[in-house]
Amino acid sequence: MTGKPDVLIVGAGAIGGFYGAILKKAGCTVSTVLRSDYEVVREQGIRITSPLGELSFQPDHVYREGDLPDEAPDFLVLCVKVLPGVDRVSLVAPWMGEKTRLVLIENGLDIERELADAFPDNPLISCLAFVAASRTDAGVIEHKAYGKLVMGRYPDGIDENCQQLSQLFTEGGINIDLTEQVVGERWRKCLWNTPFNPLSVIANGADTRTILETEGGEELIRAMMREVMSVAAAEGYPMDESLIDQNIKGTWKMPAYKNSMALDYLNDRPIEREAVLGNVVSIARRHGISVPHLNTVLVTLKMRAALEGRE
Amino acid sequence: MTGKPDVLIVGAGAIGGFYGAILKKAGCTVSTVLRSDYEVVREQGIRITSPLGELSFQPDHVYREGDLPDEAPDFLVLCVKVLPGVDRVSLVAPWMGEKTRLVLIENGLDIERELADAFPDNPLISCLAFVAASRTDAGVIEHKAYGKLVMGRYPDGIDENCQQLSQLFTEGGINIDLTEQVVGERWRKCLWNTPFNPLSVIANGADTRTILETEGGEELIRAMMREVMSVAAAEGYPMDESLIDQNIKGTWKMPAYKNSMALDYLNDRPIEREAVLGNVVSIARRHGISVPHLNTVLVTLKMRAALEGRE
Repeated sequence: MTGKPDVLIVGAGAIGGFYGAILKKAGCTVSTVLRSDYEVVREQGIRITSPLGELSFQPDHVYREGDLPDEAPDFLVLCVKVLPGVDRVSLVAPWMGEKTRLVLIENGLDIERELADAFPDNPLISCLAFVAASRTDAGVIEHKAYGKLVMGRYPDGIDENCQQLSQLFTEGGINIDLTEQVVGERWRKCLWNTPFNPLSVIANGADTRTILETEGGEELIRAMMREVMSVAAAEGYPMDESLIDQNIKGTWKMPAYKNSMALDYLNDRPIEREAVLGNVVSIARRHGISVPHLNTVLVTLKMRAALEGRE
Repeated sequence: MTGKPDVLIVGAGAIGGFYGAILKKAGCTVSTVLRSDYEVVREQGIRITSPLGELSFQPDHVYREGDLPDEAPDFLVLCVKVLPGVDRVSLVAPWMGEKTRLVLIENGLDIERELADAFPDNPLISCLAFVAASRTDAGVIEHKAYGKLVMGRYPDGIDENCQQLSQLFTEGGINIDLTEQVVGERWRKCLWNTPFNPLSVIANGADTRTILETEGGEELIRAMMREVMSVAAAEGYPMDESLIDQNIKGTWKMPAYKNSMALDYLNDRPIEREAVLGNVVSIARRHGISVPHLNTVLVTLKMRAALEGRE
């Protein structure tokens, strides 16, 4: 390989567009595969407002889902939401070459396995994004704050592919935490997300402050966090009990905040229920661990989805 | 006392209007205390459609909340919903005479105590209604089916007051089950109501079929029923475990059914959250019994109410 690598972003919403812009800034060739925003991005590129300065860019190629690629990319960065109706394997399959490194920047737990199984010979890099960004219009992204990626090889380790990708993001202006245990990091992130995100949906879009201030609310969040912790420990990722206090105290200090799942729900977009909550309950079941609080929230979300004809 | 007794119905919605009509048919003098429907009922009485035949009637007196009574009734039948903002003691206090028997036809658990404490010298008769009736317009009630009352002296026993009232309802065409343990009967009714009613609200008005058919739904209902049972047992009202199966099977056999709490929620009316669910969780706490499923539903309902500015 000579020069900077070819990158293909699949799913260039807020996350994909933002991190694609960073890689473009680092000098990569960056193309995108789009669905709804295809026409707009083809014409005017991806427009980004950001405290990091000018990030708007015109992708080198703009593909539509189903197009056939010119050639396989060095890095395929998958940023679609993890939803039951979205077959991520079929989505990336046409673009995967022999040497393509597959990169996930996606939320949730146990979301790598099916891709690792489908492409056993391609290195799989798993990333967690800590970023506040949203798509405000077709091809328009507002990056508000943060941007750090936690990154590691799936299922564990740090290899030269991670090193290379990390280097590119760093050149683009983003902090990277390389980790030997990216799955453990997913559990740590879920310690917060798995309680707060679904509860905010059940409570019709309640913000963090409303959730904590409601009588019994903080106690319920703590109980759900203890359940997440016990499942993580059974999976080989024990966490220190003090992390619960840290998470709760940190949340009290933040301004009232509506998480992305709450916003998805309020805007009639599908929510990543299984990736963030359902998979945790399934893993708990496999280990014979009782998670009554998590399960109650999961099943009531399913009832609501059934009522809305969403499943 | 000569002839049939004087009855005062406080809160003549669907329940109060219907049972008032029954007592009128039995020959009682029946007056009403109304809030929103006062003007309409004063002009055109209470209109009722019912499979039992013609039940519409003109109350002997139509009072408004805050009016002073001509004289205290023999039976004061309280039929308002049990809500945190409704002070039932103040509501009935002006109408209570020395010999007035206080009758509750209301849902929920542990709803008698504050009235028993406030009027220790008046017999308190507690009733559970098994009736499908709704108020379709001001002063207009649609009685669809059923009508049985389960009735007993609070906190237990059957006395001559129960006998007399039972006789009157029977003459009016209603089946009465007199019980020595009316509180135990409340627990049996809550075995169904406490799981199904709040869950239907959390699921945005899901009917019984949607709740049971959702993956994990029946299991969740069963877990909540087991929690209700364990609290009831600690209170001295053990139930046979087979009642859970009976309740579940019975519900599968019914057509899809939206319970009254679901309808209240969908119509922006306040729900009897504390009477049906919150009191069960409080009693569990008093006994040190863990009720994680019930508590999760309770707290999420509170979050939603907080978000809607209802508390």
